[in-house]
Amino acid sequence: MTRWKLILEWDGAPFMGWQRQDHGPSVQGALEQAVLKMTGETVTAHASGRTDAGVHALAMPVHLDLDKALDGHRLAEGLNALLRPNPVAVLSAEPVADDWHARFSCLGRRYLYRIANRRAPLTLDKGRAWRIAKPLDAAAMQQGAAHLVGHHDFTTFRSVNCQSDSPVKTLDHLEVERVGEEIHIHAAARSFLHHQVRSMVGCLSLVGLGQWLPDDMRKSLEARDRAALGLNAPAEGLYFAGALYDTPTA
Amino acid sequence: MTRWKLILEWDGAPFMGWQRQDHGPSVQGALEQAVLKMTGETVTAHASGRTDAGVHALAMPVHLDLDKALDGHRLAEGLNALLRPNPVAVLSAEPVADDWHARFSCLGRRYLYRIANRRAPLTLDKGRAWRIAKPLDAAAMQQGAAHLVGHHDFTTFRSVNCQSDSPVKTLDHLEVERVGEEIHIHAAARSFLHHQVRSMVGCLSLVGLGQWLPDDMRKSLEARDRAALGLNAPAEGLYFAGALYDTPTA
Repeated sequence: MTRWKLILEWDGAPFMGWQRQDHGPSVQGALEQAVLKMTGETVTAHASGRTDAGVHALAMPVHLDLDKALDGHRLAEGLNALLRPNPVAVLSAEPVADDWHARFSCLGRRYLYRIANRRAPLTLDKGRAWRIAKPLDAAAMQQGAAHLVGHHDFTTFRSVNCQSDSPVKTLDHLEVERVGEEIHIHAAARSFLHHQVRSMVGCLSLVGLGQWLPDDMRKSLEARDRAALGLNAPAEGLYFAGALYDTPTA
Repeated sequence: MTRWKLILEWDGAPFMGWQRQDHGPSVQGALEQAVLKMTGETVTAHASGRTDAGVHALAMPVHLDLDKALDGHRLAEGLNALLRPNPVAVLSAEPVADDWHARFSCLGRRYLYRIANRRAPLTLDKGRAWRIAKPLDAAAMQQGAAHLVGHHDFTTFRSVNCQSDSPVKTLDHLEVERVGEEIHIHAAARSFLHHQVRSMVGCLSLVGLGQWLPDDMRKSLEARDRAALGLNAPAEGLYFAGALYDTPTA
C-alpha cells in the first residue's frame, strides 16, 4: 500500500462541497470515482479542509491509499483524464509516509477571499468573486480585521452547524489588501470554525461600507453570540489557498 | 441625439464574436437588443475592434447614438440589468462628440494573450487561457517577439479572411512576461490584421517549446507567406485589453 498526497485545484460552482453527498456532486465523490476507474480500488479520500458548496480550491492537499504500484506523474495524468469534465485538477501527486494525514497532520491553513468592488456585473469573474457595488474602505477593513487576530472565542463567527469541539481558535493572520478594483482578504490559522472566514468577511464588508466602525468587529467578537454577526459572505468569493505541514513527504 | 461612448467587458465563450450574426449570439446583437428594450430605439453599435468568436474583452470602447436624453450612470445600470444573463457588462457610459468614432478615432489598441504553462487541466481558468503543458522558455519567446516589432509586411500573420487593404502594419509593442505559471503576451499597435495576435502568439509558442529558434520569427515574417505560419493560437486566451484615443470625450 502506498499513501499518496495529491494537491487539488477546483472550481466550486458545480459542487455541493468537498464531502461526498447522496443528493448532489462533490469533489470527493468525483475524485474517488476517478480513482476507481483508474485502479479498480475503492478508496476514501481525505482533504485538509472540508469546504462548503461553491467554495473554490487553489491548492488543497488530499491523501488516499492505493495498493496498485504507480508513479506520481502517471497517477496525476490518469486522474486528470478521468476527472473530465468535472472542473477538478490534480496539480501534483507524491508518495508520503503511511501515517501522514491531510487533515490531522496539517499545521496551518490559508484562505483567500475575493471581493470585486465595482458597480458593473461580473463577466469573466462571475462566480469567482463577491461583487459589492458601493466603494469599500480597505484601510478601515484592515483596522477592523486587526481586532480578530489572536487567540479568541469565535462563537460569533461560527455556523450553527459547526462540529468543532471548541469555539476557541487562534487566528494567525487576517489581512485586507486592495488589488485594483478588487479587495483580497487573506486569512491563516491552524484551523478554522465552520463559516468562520465567510462570517469574518461579511462583517468586514460592513466596516468597508461604513455601516460598522472598525471597533464593531471587536464588539461583535466579544459578544460571543451568533446573533452579533453582521453578515455571512457568499461562498463564491472563497478560495482554500493552501496548507502547511511539518514533513510533507515520506 | 447624443453619441455615447461605452466601455464593455465580456466573456467571449458564448459568442460568435463582436459582430452581429444571423447564425448565433454576438456581443453587438446582445447590446443592441438591450438598448432597444431600454429606449425603444434601434441602434447600430460600433466597437473599436471586431473580435472573433471566443475572444474576451477587458475594456472595449463602443459608440452608439441615442435620441432619448439619459444620464450615463442610468444608461450603464439599465443596460447591465437588460444584458443579463449574457456575460457582458457596461463598465462606463459617457457622452462624446458627434464625430467621435470608436473604430475610426482609435489611435491604438492593446491585446493580452494568456498562456497557462502547466501540465494539469484548467479549472478556474478554463476558457480563460491557452494551456500548454510543456515548459516554455519565456526569454527565448521575448527574443523572437523582438523581431516583429516595427513597420513590416505581416502577410505571414494574417488570416486569409482579413479585409484590411494592406498587410503592412506598425507593431509598437510585443512583450512576453512570465507571471507565476502563466505567460502573458502584451501586444500594442494602431491596428492589427485579422488573426495577427493569435498568429504571432502561435509562432512564439513554438519558440518557447524550442521547436523554433527566436530567429525563425524573423524568417517567418520575411517570408510574407501564410504558409510560413507555425500555428494560430486559440481564441480563448485572447483579450482585447484597451484602446487609446486623442480626445475621448465631448
